This record gives sequence, structure tokens and C-alpha cells, in this order.
Amino acid sequence: MKEGDTMIGSQVARILESRNPSFPVGIFVVANAGWTTHFISDGKNLSPLPPNWPENLPRSLALGTIGMPGLTAYFGLLELCRPKPGETVLVNSAAGAVGSVVGQIAKIKGCKVVGTAGSDKKLDYLKELGFDEVFNYKTVKSLEQALRDASPNGYDCYFDNVGGEFSSIVLEQMNKFGRIAVCGAISLYNDTQVKKGPFVQVPMVMKELYMEGFLVSRWNDRKEEGLKAILKWIQEGKIKCHEDITKGFQNMPAAFMGMLKGDNFGKAVVEV
Amino acid sequence: MKEGDTMIGSQVARILESRNPSFPVGIFVVANAGWTTHFISDGKNLSPLPPNWPENLPRSLALGTIGMPGLTAYFGLLELCRPKPGETVLVNSAAGAVGSVVGQIAKIKGCKVVGTAGSDKKLDYLKELGFDEVFNYKTVKSLEQALRDASPNGYDCYFDNVGGEFSSIVLEQMNKFGRIAVCGAISLYNDTQVKKGPFVQVPMVMKELYMEGFLVSRWNDRKEEGLKAILKWIQEGKIKCHEDITKGFQNMPAAFMGMLKGDNFGKAVVEV
Repeated sequence: MKEGDTMIGSQVARILESRNPSFPVGIFVVANAGWTTHFISDGKNLSPLPPNWPENLPRSLALGTIGMPGLTAYFGLLELCRPKPGETVLVNSAAGAVGSVVGQIAKIKGCKVVGTAGSDKKLDYLKELGFDEVFNYKTVKSLEQALRDASPNGYDCYFDNVGGEFSSIVLEQMNKFGRIAVCGAISLYNDTQVKKGPFVQVPMVMKELYMEGFLVSRWNDRKEEGLKAILKWIQEGKIKCHEDITKGFQNMPAAFMGMLKGDNFGKAVVEV
Repeated sequence: MKEGDTMIGSQVARILESRNPSFPVGIFVVANAGWTTHFISDGKNLSPLPPNWPENLPRSLALGTIGMPGLTAYFGLLELCRPKPGETVLVNSAAGAVGSVVGQIAKIKGCKVVGTAGSDKKLDYLKELGFDEVFNYKTVKSLEQALRDASPNGYDCYFDNVGGEFSSIVLEQMNKFGRIAVCGAISLYNDTQVKKGPFVQVPMVMKELYMEGFLVSRWNDRKEEGLKAILKWIQEGKIKCHEDITKGFQNMPAAFMGMLKGDNFGKAVVEV
């Protein structure tokens, strides 16, 4: 980004004026217009909020649990990891907008859930959400041992937000016919040179493992189904959504810096 | 193996005497009794040849194309790679008992097929089988460039018998939504220390790739279906089976050494 560019970001916005009948005045939409209080759109990248949005839920959830991050968790876990009751599910970046929903849906499906995060405060948050085992990957002496302690019987499903060395260690602890959904690789995105780890083929064959990378857009035609299911679980109290709300447009930079430092639990939202 | 052990190996054998009604005298079975002209079995690891075995086909094919290697190719390709007409399929160790069937089934399914092998004689054999593009991975200057030349538009399906560096290079040339069936990792089995390559997660996510390791045993309950399909294709002339036959039990060691050196095309068989 250059000086003078509008900072990137998504928002729930209300239509104030409209010449497009698909977006009548007064409705709310999810947009990607960056840090701005008002903007003009041709309607191309606007998604109306689901109709019948429950009055007791903040519309900002459409940026998190009842939006793309929630759908990413829902489809990635259910369609790719395909957890069965009694199985053990591992998710990293577990306190994030995606990971926190992954763990809660895995609990709904009757699994044992292990989550990892990078601060002890986040571990408390994960416990509150119902995770069975949690640990701080930054402070454990050995990630290998911590994973073994959290699940001595190995892992059946692995929802991977991190990649790299973390995933190489997990691969060794996957059970026969284990399923890995690769959602992200935050440990690798900033690399300037290629990082290496053990080749995956021997454990893949010996344990007949399945691994699939995905972007949530592949299920765009099933958005409604996913949002409906998530909304139902929220209303039944089975999925908790924690938003980290900062008030006032002028506090945007501070909120953003706090999010980067990992101060937030759940989706970081600024109310304008 | 120790001196005095029976050398390992599979055979098609005829029942000469029997006290087990499941294996009447005269029928033929596939067994894993090692290098021996006669043996006694409790029936546990014997599989009768399919009934109605065609008279024009040698029974030894039950060790290759109409046996485990053929089923490995059939299910691994069709169930995991799921090739669609017009797609490009890559198979390495393509002249082997599995790879040669993979390529021919991919052709039946309307794909462009690229095969790699380790000798120019094997390349001729692959051409004869109908492979579209073949190259000798041992003599090309750059595997990356050879793969690009063989398919400038990338690969949709990859049937992997090799693993390791070969597969890391292929991963970079997989197309969006590509499918990788990991059947073996011969480049890695003899390693005494762990070999490393680039982490897989970034291409897995960005291209939404699918990778699954497998053993053919997972489809044990569908053996009959697979053998029936392969047999039909053989009788229609769509799958050619090449056996490399040596006659005489005393020539077993020479045939075995030739197979290790890669002299054989297709399944190496000794007729006793």
C-alpha cells in the first residue's frame, strides 16, 4: 500500500441513496470498501445481509461468524475434514474468526477438540467456547510433545490455518485415514525464500491420509445453507460469537494495531 | 532376509491336494508363498482366480493387470484422481505394472496422458501403449522444463508412484482443483535420514489442490467390480498387458536381477 491509499477492510454498510433496484435505500450490505465512513459503489462487490436477520444479533456478525469466516469454518470442516462423533479434531489459530467456529462446530458434531493459540488469554477464551484441550504453541517446550499430551491417540481431523513446520509435526500424529483441510498457511505467506520440511508422501501413503486446500468461494452456491445452519446454532446457544468492538472511526488505527498484536478475541470490529 | 529364508514373491498356483472345501483340487489361486515350486497352505492368504477366466488369457495376469497392480491403477485413478475427458494426467514409473495400466485407463477416459520412466526402451513401450507424451526423467536436463514441454497447460491429475523432489516439481505445475493420488514413494523408501522439500500448504490452498495417499486394500470389497472392468477392456483391446516371461524355476534369480536392473517391460513373471 502507498501513502494516500484507502486502508483495506470490510464493513456492514447501509444504503443511503440508490439508483440500483437490487440495493434499495435502507438495506444493509457487506462490502469491501476499506476504511471509510461513506462510499459509492456500482453494486458489484456488495452482498445484502440475509433477510430476516434476527433483531437480537448485531449486524456486524455478518463480517465474522455469520459471514465469510463462519462459512469457511463450516464448509472446510464439514465437507473436507468430515468429522465423525468420537473423533479428535485439531485446529490451530483456534482463537481466530475461523478457528473459533471450527472448534465449536466440531463439538456440536460430538468430537474431542484440541485448539492451539499464541497467548494464554486466548486459551481461556477457547476453554470458554468449549474446547477440550488447548495450549500455547509459543510457550510449550516441544510442539510434538504438547500435541501428544493433548491427544495421546492422535488426530483424525486437522483444520490447518498455519502450515509449515507446525503441519509437518501434526502429519506424524495423524491417524489412519485422517483428513486435513488446508485453509491457510500464515506461517509461510511472508517468506521471501522457500522454506522446507520433510516430504509428505510416506505418511500420506502409509496412513492413507487425505489433504485438501480450499477457498470458501467454491461453496458460493451453498452460502444460504451454511449461514442458516450457523444462525440456528447461534440462536440455540451452541455457537458463541465474540466480537471485539471498538467505538468511533477515529479509533480505527488503534484497534487495528491491537488486532495485529493479538489483543483481540474473536472478530475485531469498529463501530462507526 | 536371512540366509536360508524363502525368498518373497507371489504366484498363481494350482491346488493339488485339499482338505478345505473352499479350495477344491484343480482350481487356481493367487498366493504369496515365495520362491517355491510346491507349498502347503491353511487357505488364509489364498485368493481363487475369478471364475470364468477367459481361455485366451494367461492365468499369470492375475499377478499383474488382472490382479493387485491392475486394481491399484483402476481404483487409485478413478476414485481419487477422477479424470475427466480432455484433462491431462501425469503418471511416473509409468512402465511399471501399476503405471502402465493407469495411463491406459486414463486414455480410455479421454485424457491426455504424460508418462515418465527411466530408460528409452521403456519410453518406446509407453508409446506402444498409447501414451501421448513420454520422457526419460534420468536423462532430461531439467525435470521442470520437461514437464512443462510435455504439458504447457499444466496437470489436472497426478498419479504419484515416486514422491520426493519429483512431486515437489509437479506440485508447482498442477492446475486449479488438481487431484493427486499418492500410490507410492519409491524415491523415499530407502532413506536413512529425512529428506526435505518445499512445504506444500501454499500451493495446496492457492490452487485448492486435493491429495490422497492410498493402499488398494481399502477397495477390497469392490475387487470383483474392478477385475470385471479391467478384463472387459483387455478383451476389447483397450488395455494391453505385457508380461516379461522367463521359463524355468532355476532361472528365477536371473529374472529377479534383471527386474531390479529395469530390464523388464510389464510384469516380470517366471513360468515354473
